[in-house]
Amino acid sequence: MIPTPYLLFLGDAPDPLAAKVAQGIRDWRPEHAVGQLRLPGCKADMGLPDMTIAEAVEAGAKTLVIGVANRGGVISQAWKAELHDAIAAGMDIASGLHNLLRDEPDLVEASHAHGVTLHDVRVPTVKYPIADGKKRTGKRVLAVGTDCSVGKMYTGMAMDREMKDRGLKSSFRATGQTGILVTGEGVPLDAVIADFMAGAVEWLTPDNDADHWDHIEGQGSLYHVSYSGVTMALIHGGQPDALILAHEPTRTHMRGLPDYGLPSLEQLRDTALPLARIANPACQVVGVSVNTKALDDAAAAKCCQEIEDRMGLPTVDPYRHGAGRLVDALLAL
Amino acid sequence: MIPTPYLLFLGDAPDPLAAKVAQGIRDWRPEHAVGQLRLPGCKADMGLPDMTIAEAVEAGAKTLVIGVANRGGVISQAWKAELHDAIAAGMDIASGLHNLLRDEPDLVEASHAHGVTLHDVRVPTVKYPIADGKKRTGKRVLAVGTDCSVGKMYTGMAMDREMKDRGLKSSFRATGQTGILVTGEGVPLDAVIADFMAGAVEWLTPDNDADHWDHIEGQGSLYHVSYSGVTMALIHGGQPDALILAHEPTRTHMRGLPDYGLPSLEQLRDTALPLARIANPACQVVGVSVNTKALDDAAAAKCCQEIEDRMGLPTVDPYRHGAGRLVDALLAL
Repeated sequence: MIPTPYLLFLGDAPDPLAAKVAQGIRDWRPEHAVGQLRLPGCKADMGLPDMTIAEAVEAGAKTLVIGVANRGGVISQAWKAELHDAIAAGMDIASGLHNLLRDEPDLVEASHAHGVTLHDVRVPTVKYPIADGKKRTGKRVLAVGTDCSVGKMYTGMAMDREMKDRGLKSSFRATGQTGILVTGEGVPLDAVIADFMAGAVEWLTPDNDADHWDHIEGQGSLYHVSYSGVTMALIHGGQPDALILAHEPTRTHMRGLPDYGLPSLEQLRDTALPLARIANPACQVVGVSVNTKALDDAAAAKCCQEIEDRMGLPTVDPYRHGAGRLVDALLAL
Repeated sequence: MIPTPYLLFLGDAPDPLAAKVAQGIRDWRPEHAVGQLRLPGCKADMGLPDMTIAEAVEAGAKTLVIGVANRGGVISQAWKAELHDAIAAGMDIASGLHNLLRDEPDLVEASHAHGVTLHDVRVPTVKYPIADGKKRTGKRVLAVGTDCSVGKMYTGMAMDREMKDRGLKSSFRATGQTGILVTGEGVPLDAVIADFMAGAVEWLTPDNDADHWDHIEGQGSLYHVSYSGVTMALIHGGQPDALILAHEPTRTHMRGLPDYGLPSLEQLRDTALPLARIANPACQVVGVSVNTKALDDAAAAKCCQEIEDRMGLPTVDPYRHGAGRLVDALLAL
């Protein structure tokens, strides 16, 4: 286990989305986040107290969590001074980047010298099977997005919390670094060997009680050419009974791909549902989750209403409006 | 480079398809295959002379190639006696299995003792990038299948050979163990880390002359829940200009998934083409490749004609009938 509370390291995040790991912890485990550390030029802000390493230690921080991801997932040389300061001050370091803390000899040496631990959460620790496609008991829901980083994880977290609040059987199944750092377990799916992706999702969402729901954390998008294979494995390995369409209405192009426009929600529905029905012929699209963070209250309500009228599906921002209507739609299946 | 010629080890293959690595070498580089070694119960036969290790050495074999794959890609204990005999006789061993020769301590020790080399071709040797989706120059064609193991590699190999015979610019781009063992290079795509799959395909099929065609080796199937994510990455990383639909007409269920029926060629077309157009809006389905190995000449011709009439696309078994009509369809684009 990773010692809490955390100091969230935002580094030189080029935009707020780059700090989505930190944001996820801030939003879903605020009691674990004592402060943030930002480098010059950082474009992200969690609204937490800015702290030096010394101040964070004083405030009780046990682990510096690298809460920022740059393209390719490397550990930037620009971060090294602060990482070394944290280690020297006795803090563990936790990271979900593709490039591993344990592969940085200077950090490893310092961690040994100061008796702290380096936690790489994006390292598969299980030998996952090849997917066998067998029908599993229990229910599963997956959010699929018009793009990456549109609120799929928040949708699952919010629905899981709502179901637990109602006393229903429910699990959030983390498939990415943020989900794993928030919940403490899961499959780092984008770090799994290609042939075992779908099998890892099957492993993550095993047989369960007939009235139990797994909220599987979505990844990527069928329309995002960099990561669509990971999304496909979630759809087929997860064999979802229900899909939620996830969307961010102010996005002008696919994240990181300026030449690629976003699909409409109708296109996403018509692409994802037939693919999902290969693994689960009973699958239904039950709702739309809109990330309205960039909109004010009135604009958010209007946006959701317009989509609801157009799509004929309950449409909410589950983080802003609550996930009650999406959970109702699941239970009505 | 792996020393040739090869002894093809078929092991205890439970069916002929399990030996598709050996079959690929036999069919596309027959000059490299001096014989075959089968264990009791082996259900595959390459039509090559059955040889002991001693006979293979006598016949000039330099490398024992593990030409059989079992589910999960493990190195069976049942094979070990013959592998050790080959090493003791001075032969290299080559394997494309997920489980590596280099991770078997007994084989490593024996290889050192006898001065031979263990070749694991399913080990990515390149740090592949994240796909950027940028339009590349040159042309690309990808075969997509109604199932796994329906002739996608043979389709690419046959079209590449036909184009080279016509003096046209053409490359076969191997993405699997067999293709890599046949051609000597490529990307072992199903062994690549999930986030880098599409980037590995981009890397494999770079900018090229405007009239050059890459024949990208297909993998899996969009309809095969175990491997569909790998297929998706090929479609988006390859940004093909042309798709060939590949089919095996006697298959009764998806390979390894007895509860899953095959899609029709129409379903495959209607699923694959919109997905391909996300990365390349100009993509077209140009032909159908039928693996008629299980049919006699008359039945093969009738099967292709029926599909051609139904689909309105040139339909051939490229290994049996030649790939000329498929290449004509490419050039007509």
